[in-house]
Amino acid sequence: MIAPTPAPPYYAVIFTSERTTVDDGYGLMAERMAELAQQQSGYLGHESAREGVGITVSYWDNLDAIKNWKKNTEHLFAQKKGRDQWYAKYKTRICRVERDYEFIINKDS
Amino acid sequence: MIAPTPAPPYYAVIFTSERTTVDDGYGLMAERMAELAQQQSGYLGHESAREGVGITVSYWDNLDAIKNWKKNTEHLFAQKKGRDQWYAKYKTRICRVERDYEFIINKDS
Repeated sequence: MIAPTPAPPYYAVIFTSERTTVDDGYGLMAERMAELAQQQSGYLGHESAREGVGITVSYWDNLDAIKNWKKNTEHLFAQKKGRDQWYAKYKTRICRVERDYEFIINKDS
Repeated sequence: MIAPTPAPPYYAVIFTSERTTVDDGYGLMAERMAELAQQQSGYLGHESAREGVGITVSYWDNLDAIKNWKKNTEHLFAQKKGRDQWYAKYKTRICRVERDYEFIINKDS
């Protein structure tokens, strides 16, 4: 689903990852982190897909919200387990969304 | 593959999409656009995955490079065909990457 974000400016965290072959609760953790992120102050939405590489983009109202989410205790635990077991490689990019535009098909045409 | 981008700041275009059921050359177009983007001045790399929703993030040296890519003739043709046939919905977000960090597994541990 495309996240219904407000008018810019807002912030995006692009998390791109390559997995190891270790499962050990990865799917449950991913679900739990999505649920937990939604409860954070300043959370706006997220989008996620994996096809070889995994891309998860979460959207936030401000940089403090991103900092708070990064240091959330349960999230810190998942981050450590991610480095120890689940991810062979990842890159996180913190971005300011400056402009956006969208297209929605005209269902009547 | 995770795009090997330089130190920030640089720019990201997050293109999130939902497809129609129409194929009609979509895969070939996507390959061609990736190839063509790589030839543009200021192109730094891209990452792409589709799992229900499709997320393609392309990285650019500056905003002019993004503008030039958007108005590239062959790309304009693909954009129109995208709206006419391939996409039910999409959202494009132009972002300034302010910080990034990465993890690579220690193969020796």
